[in-house]
Amino acid sequence: MTQNIYDTPEFFEGYSKMSRSVDGLAGAPEWPALQALLPPLAGLNVVDLGCGYGWFSRWAQEQGARQVVALDVSQKMLARAIEMTSSPAITHAIADLEQLDLPAATFDLAYSSLAFHYIVDLKGLFARLHEALVPGGRLVFSIEHPIFMAPREPGWLIDDQGRKSWPVNGYQQEGPRVTNWLAKGVIKQHRTLGTLLNLLIQAGFTLNHVEEWGPSEADLKARPELEEEQERPMMLLVAAQRSQA
Amino acid sequence: MTQNIYDTPEFFEGYSKMSRSVDGLAGAPEWPALQALLPPLAGLNVVDLGCGYGWFSRWAQEQGARQVVALDVSQKMLARAIEMTSSPAITHAIADLEQLDLPAATFDLAYSSLAFHYIVDLKGLFARLHEALVPGGRLVFSIEHPIFMAPREPGWLIDDQGRKSWPVNGYQQEGPRVTNWLAKGVIKQHRTLGTLLNLLIQAGFTLNHVEEWGPSEADLKARPELEEEQERPMMLLVAAQRSQA
Repeated sequence: MTQNIYDTPEFFEGYSKMSRSVDGLAGAPEWPALQALLPPLAGLNVVDLGCGYGWFSRWAQEQGARQVVALDVSQKMLARAIEMTSSPAITHAIADLEQLDLPAATFDLAYSSLAFHYIVDLKGLFARLHEALVPGGRLVFSIEHPIFMAPREPGWLIDDQGRKSWPVNGYQQEGPRVTNWLAKGVIKQHRTLGTLLNLLIQAGFTLNHVEEWGPSEADLKARPELEEEQERPMMLLVAAQRSQA
Repeated sequence: MTQNIYDTPEFFEGYSKMSRSVDGLAGAPEWPALQALLPPLAGLNVVDLGCGYGWFSRWAQEQGARQVVALDVSQKMLARAIEMTSSPAITHAIADLEQLDLPAATFDLAYSSLAFHYIVDLKGLFARLHEALVPGGRLVFSIEHPIFMAPREPGWLIDDQGRKSWPVNGYQQEGPRVTNWLAKGVIKQHRTLGTLLNLLIQAGFTLNHVEEWGPSEADLKARPELEEEQERPMMLLVAAQRSQA
């Protein structure tokens, strides 16, 4: 089972104060880019993998999704998500994405925001998602970028002119990365970008779009602190599709 | 027209002494990985984009390729390539990859080794290659990795324990990068990995494989100096395909 760091009090406290927790989708600077990769949701069956507080699930339901299955490994997060909606179109469930059990050929869209970098058996997850999607169904997700995750000691280097660089090392060494983000000992799984994409291709997905998210001019005006995000990508956004046949 | 740095005496001298120039394909550590992405060549029409000394073209002909069109912008490189073969199955021509003029639906394989990072109009090149390939035809190429190319001052940082990091900055700022590799003022075109892949997808290609090359255990035994290549990828290998329809 994947480490469930979200139910650690320390982590949950920290996470619950983040902009993306308080303000929802609008608090996540990559949301407009991720949204642009989604099909129109009206009438679709959607599964939200790692739904957290359920911001996306509620948005999807508002967009006219027929049914949204919102899954998370964290009881605390799910409890909050359930509090915030009474729509019968949204079903919440505890689920470990390592051992997902979904009905076959059921969903038009599988969505996930910043959860897949915790998964050890990503090959298994992609196989199960491929099976759970209808032919032509979409998989749209964000994940921490391997450039961001690879280093032994993630953190900016600042030169004597104040310019930032991100020190990349250990890129080819795939496997766990332990960081102290919000809580001590958070375990993420580093894979090269190539490995990630090849796992999708080998599972039967066609790649439609690969985006290494960075802030736009408008983002920088609204949030000047995002300037450093131009130096190296922190997040990767991917849109893939189960073939029509 | 792309800068033709290869005909600069200084660059040509330096390049001609490199292992991949002297020893050919066996001198390029990424060759086995690139080779693994190729279809069986017997009977195929092949175009080699940026053929250099023609090592790949001659190998392709030895593998039974029906016809190999070997193109390069450098007169000096082509002259060497022509010296090294008398096979009527190989045709050499001066060509600027920015303004390629190939017959439609003719080639089964377009191949390129470490040339595409010099191209300004990669969108145009991919469109022309897509048109020049038969339905189902393959595009297999290597290119300098954006992680390698992005930084203002490419070069290793070494900490007090002797450990190497590659300082990534300016990743989102696409455009020319001027380096002093073999000669002064070599101009390469930095694009994010996402942009590169999306240009292929938008041109109508399906992505079959994306590999951020790093040395294997066997590579490291044979060439211990490759150890640093585990820290960050220097090269990207891509296999794509024109759809069958």
